[in-house]
Amino acid sequence: MIKIASTAMRYHADNPHLDGFYADIDELHLQPLWEMRGLLTPNPKVSAVPHVWGSAELRKAAERSGQLVPIDRGGDRRVLALSNPGLGGKPFISSTLWAAVQFLQPGELAPAHRHTPSALRFVLDGGGVYTLIDGDPIVMERGDLVLTPAWTFHEHHNPSDQSMMWLDVLDLPIVAALDAVFFEEGPSAEADQSVAPQSLSEQRYGQGPGLVPTGVSQISHDRAFSPLTVYRWADTDAALNALLEADASGHAELRFRDPSRDRDVMPTLRCEMRRISPGVATPVDRQTGTRVCAVLNGSGSVTLGREVYSLTAGDIFVVPSWCIHQLQATTTMDVFTTSDAPVLEALELFRRSEVPA
Amino acid sequence: MIKIASTAMRYHADNPHLDGFYADIDELHLQPLWEMRGLLTPNPKVSAVPHVWGSAELRKAAERSGQLVPIDRGGDRRVLALSNPGLGGKPFISSTLWAAVQFLQPGELAPAHRHTPSALRFVLDGGGVYTLIDGDPIVMERGDLVLTPAWTFHEHHNPSDQSMMWLDVLDLPIVAALDAVFFEEGPSAEADQSVAPQSLSEQRYGQGPGLVPTGVSQISHDRAFSPLTVYRWADTDAALNALLEADASGHAELRFRDPSRDRDVMPTLRCEMRRISPGVATPVDRQTGTRVCAVLNGSGSVTLGREVYSLTAGDIFVVPSWCIHQLQATTTMDVFTTSDAPVLEALELFRRSEVPA
Amino acid sequence: MIKIASTAMRYHADNPHLDGFYADIDELHLQPLWEMRGLLTPNPKVSAVPHVWGSAELRKAAERSGQLVPIDRGGDRRVLALSNPGLGGKPFISSTLWAAVQFLQPGELAPAHRHTPSALRFVLDGGGVYTLIDGDPIVMERGDLVLTPAWTFHEHHNPSDQSMMWLDVLDLPIVAALDAVFFEEGPSAEADQSVAPQSLSEQRYGQGPGLVPTGVSQISHDRAFSPLTVYRWADTDAALNALLEADASGHAELRFRDPSRDRDVMPTLRCEMRRISPGVATPVDRQTGTRVCAVLNGSGSVTLGREVYSLTAGDIFVVPSWCIHQLQATTTMDVFTTSDAPVLEALELFRRSEVPA
Amino acid sequence: MIKIASTAMRYHADNPHLDGFYADIDELHLQPLWEMRGLLTPNPKVSAVPHVWGSAELRKAAERSGQLVPIDRGGDRRVLALSNPGLGGKPFISSTLWAAVQFLQPGELAPAHRHTPSALRFVLDGGGVYTLIDGDPIVMERGDLVLTPAWTFHEHHNPSDQSMMWLDVLDLPIVAALDAVFFEEGPSAEADQSVAPQSLSEQRYGQGPGLVPTGVSQISHDRAFSPLTVYRWADTDAALNALLEADASGHAELRFRDPSRDRDVMPTLRCEMRRISPGVATPVDRQTGTRVCAVLNGSGSVTLGREVYSLTAGDIFVVPSWCIHQLQATTTMDVFTTSDAPVLEALELFRRSEVPA
Repeated sequence: MIKIASTAMRYHADNPHLDGFYADIDELHLQPLWEMRGLLTPNPKVSAVPHVWGSAELRKAAERSGQLVPIDRGGDRRVLALSNPGLGGKPFISSTLWAAVQFLQPGELAPAHRHTPSALRFVLDGGGVYTLIDGDPIVMERGDLVLTPAWTFHEHHNPSDQSMMWLDVLDLPIVAALDAVFFEEGPSAEADQSVAPQSLSEQRYGQGPGLVPTGVSQISHDRAFSPLTVYRWADTDAALNALLEADASGHAELRFRDPSRDRDVMPTLRCEMRRISPGVATPVDRQTGTRVCAVLNGSGSVTLGREVYSLTAGDIFVVPSWCIHQLQATTTMDVFTTSDAPVLEALELFRRSEVPA
Repeated sequence: MIKIASTAMRYHADNPHLDGFYADIDELHLQPLWEMRGLLTPNPKVSAVPHVWGSAELRKAAERSGQLVPIDRGGDRRVLALSNPGLGGKPFISSTLWAAVQFLQPGELAPAHRHTPSALRFVLDGGGVYTLIDGDPIVMERGDLVLTPAWTFHEHHNPSDQSMMWLDVLDLPIVAALDAVFFEEGPSAEADQSVAPQSLSEQRYGQGPGLVPTGVSQISHDRAFSPLTVYRWADTDAALNALLEADASGHAELRFRDPSRDRDVMPTLRCEMRRISPGVATPVDRQTGTRVCAVLNGSGSVTLGREVYSLTAGDIFVVPSWCIHQLQATTTMDVFTTSDAPVLEALELFRRSEVPA
Repeated sequence: MIKIASTAMRYHADNPHLDGFYADIDELHLQPLWEMRGLLTPNPKVSAVPHVWGSAELRKAAERSGQLVPIDRGGDRRVLALSNPGLGGKPFISSTLWAAVQFLQPGELAPAHRHTPSALRFVLDGGGVYTLIDGDPIVMERGDLVLTPAWTFHEHHNPSDQSMMWLDVLDLPIVAALDAVFFEEGPSAEADQSVAPQSLSEQRYGQGPGLVPTGVSQISHDRAFSPLTVYRWADTDAALNALLEADASGHAELRFRDPSRDRDVMPTLRCEMRRISPGVATPVDRQTGTRVCAVLNGSGSVTLGREVYSLTAGDIFVVPSWCIHQLQATTTMDVFTTSDAPVLEALELFRRSEVPA
Repeated sequence: MIKIASTAMRYHADNPHLDGFYADIDELHLQPLWEMRGLLTPNPKVSAVPHVWGSAELRKAAERSGQLVPIDRGGDRRVLALSNPGLGGKPFISSTLWAAVQFLQPGELAPAHRHTPSALRFVLDGGGVYTLIDGDPIVMERGDLVLTPAWTFHEHHNPSDQSMMWLDVLDLPIVAALDAVFFEEGPSAEADQSVAPQSLSEQRYGQGPGLVPTGVSQISHDRAFSPLTVYRWADTDAALNALLEADASGHAELRFRDPSRDRDVMPTLRCEMRRISPGVATPVDRQTGTRVCAVLNGSGSVTLGREVYSLTAGDIFVVPSWCIHQLQATTTMDVFTTSDAPVLEALELFRRSEVPA
């Protein structure tokens, strides 16, 4: 929908009768389909382009923003949006996703609000921050995945003595395109140093596989979001090792899912984690929808379309819709991926294929 | 996602340190969230505005296009897109839906193609056309609802001696925003005068309520579209009468659904039909997402936001997201409505409320 | 569970130590698995045997019961249970289903009650009866299928001047085996001659395919039963004709389903109707669970195991679990079938195979 | 279905006409409903009675069976069935469930077979056994829950130097009542001392909450059984502690579920674990269907109907359908419960209520 210039358009033909007709129907807010081009293309016409944001530059920019921009109660988030070079200056990483790095320094507090766009955080660096999700405190550490489901109040506290940087991904462009953005400020808690080691969410849903409190069934949640709001790196790491052990391919891939139901963690965002052994390359694939990836550990490279980009821990990259994609590991490489695949699946628009080498 | 000017942006502050920072991060394709405005609004910031396209003007424009623009094999559809006055010239009726009138004259043929956007047709006027959906011939008559599920080949034939005009609605802007448009030309059948009175789709799924061929169960279709591709006006009319009889409110409303499964006719489009008795007004409501409505019979008026628009048979109007909406009938009025509600529901973004008068 | 004699058992061995042990554990209500036989068999050990109840005998017995046994308010149903010859005198047609013919004479009333077993009626003969299902009046005519979902009050009135006979099928043996039978008398309506031609159930859900009142969705019913409580013969007949036309096999088969959801009419009973053209035979099949069948029209034969039974209109027969089954039509034959297949499917115990001739 | 004597029945009246009629229809395998009693009862007429099997007696009987009865390849399981005193000698713990203790001594092997009844094992005592489920080795330790889904080959090996006793529960009476028992011998593996510490099932599905291999979605398993076949006591214990901590009631209850889907571990058996703090009593409840319970740790008592039974670790008891039930802990008590609740829920026959004290 973005593909058409947003200035008022008038259609022209070499024929004065037609031109008169076009002028008349323009008054009636009607437009001739037969004069339009590019509405229906053999393959997706994707404005977003492949791009890698380097770890060192991200870290440096984040720290500089920390020095220059205060964050105090009443203010906003200290967030740097990853703006796709193909989107003409829009602050989005693709036509469907927002991605950014957020930076929180010792003693800082990002106050409470809520909105219909859903968010996730993936911790790239540092530790000691806790986030309150509808009042439930989640301590965030490196490698943890934290969910902020639509319309939950959330605020971030850093009672520690170190800075922390994480990746934020939101479905904001989708929610905006659907004319469904709602937003509300909320009352923040006072900064608190004494956070419980385990959130209520984890006490109830963060236990061993398949163990959930009695009474939870297909009708017991009224919202389509995972009741578990944090997935700990220790669990993810152990699961990747077990999968690698179970399979000789040197490539393990797991999906983060609602532990009580057969679905993704949120209706708009799929989350996955891959571990690739040194020297191993993943199958070449492409799929509809956007993937946003972050390298947590290790190094290697990624092929995106016709280019190969080298990767190191902390790098973030985007795989646009239908773009050829392949990962190669030099050292054991852990790559977090989030995507809008649940949206495309729900609307029967998901296509994925492995591409012969 | 449309709300931000599509020219390259640069952020500015009164502080030279900040300006230097902004310039540097611009090189890195990073943007400062704290300088952005309007991303998260208390209520949806909707560009589309309420609008009514009048029956007489639509008919006249369609006929004039019929005189001016030939449609021959190899050509395209004779379609006039309803362009929302609030969208700056885009050929869409809202940020999510395409709506148009299509006009087919005696002897004409709109050749076969298929695409990932899904379409529906609602016949406003005339008759005698048949459409082939993956080869299955569907005769179209006034008041019929015809589905063209994503990626089905479709072509329109008019072997009759009268012109026909129908409403086309597609989810095209949504599919384009998701970077998932695929398109393919197809081989068209020769024009054929001897169409079967009942399509295969109707023979199998268009029978009495709850009657379906054996073997159809929750796993038997691999696609999330109704296997019934046409809903006949005679059935709709009878159902509306029965509902009016069962309930003293003077207002009957039914939904067109997949007859074999618990879902809307297509994953992106909901279809409904209302019959309102003379003097009756519907509850005042608003909901997220776009509704496109067409008056099939009768007359009355519609309140959209703060304006009241009078309505007569053949009028088409749009109810933008979160806009106040109420129908009032002068004579018995039948209103067809289609919306993107299934999309908003699937993504947990659907909100609807009745508004106290 | 019925396969073991219901008298107290004692296990014996030739070894006095073992015998002493068996005596001791008998006191403790323990039994030695290694002495049991026949618990786990290569194929189902089915007590029920194939059997056909002839139309003429059923009709005659029903009429004779009408002369001998009065039915008046406070009394009970005039019902003759079809007792499977293999079940040792139990009044069930198989280990899972109850089947019977019910006979109601002019002016009679079978008073209201409800129970957790679910019932269905298939009208074999006569007309003019109406049944009230939770107060909603359903006129019953020949060939109609009427549902009495679990725990709905139901009563039968015959205000006409003709007798009526129908087939009753209940899941009673299943509900009893699950220790879940509840029963309650209810207040009956006075006999009423002025029944509405269409029930509320039909006004809402008995319309054209896929047309349902607005607001009905996957979460709108709290019960897993079809909201449509009658399937009319005129609809069934038309659907069978359409299916025969769509397919050259000479054999049409449809399933009665919940018109608003992807499921059988009731959680325990599947209902189907077959039309077989003269000279045509259905594939030879067998499946787990019981099928109860009634011939509505026409004549032919059925193979059950190694026997062939001739069939004529009004005959009722049972196909025990895993029994070979094939139908052959002499004249166009319509056969109604109900089965416990939804139970076996829900518990992952359904097996079905076509058997090579 | 068990309520009626299994000898052939004949109905008698004081009226010779009626008696003649009854004799005649008996020949036709028809029976008069109006002469039957007890088919439909206000509340379930349950034959099974409450009963507690004591830990010491079970252990002693198991050991004595170990001395008396050899188990060698070609033989069968060394299993003592818990026979409900109300069922007249049938080897079932209720009309729907089989429960037993199985005893395996050092070096023994219970050879491979499979059957359509599903089984579970709950380890009461000992350790060192491993079971192969379709070839995947599961080491069993005290407190572990092991699943044997329908139609999976299973065999038990004891390469250790200690005996092991566990509770077996099967849905055998249900599957038999549905005439759906199939059984097959299988080839057993040679006894093997070198079992992997983690099964393939655990490597894939036994990881942290919500973590599953990529590609698992609502359509990826073709069977309705948990792909995780063992739930480890260490996980269960930790989850119970977390739940106790999250809630001041002194009573924690969790359900074992398919970790990848929204359902019970198997279609016929629900599994739950309760931890009750000293002095705490659970709410008084009753529900349809059978519950089989085993005390893993601690002591206390259970009220069943009007009786109170004292409980100690290793005791097994049955809660018949609709029987009043309440647990009281003296020391911290862990109680495993399995039930046929998924069956009753699937058939819409589940009723549960808390009973005012």
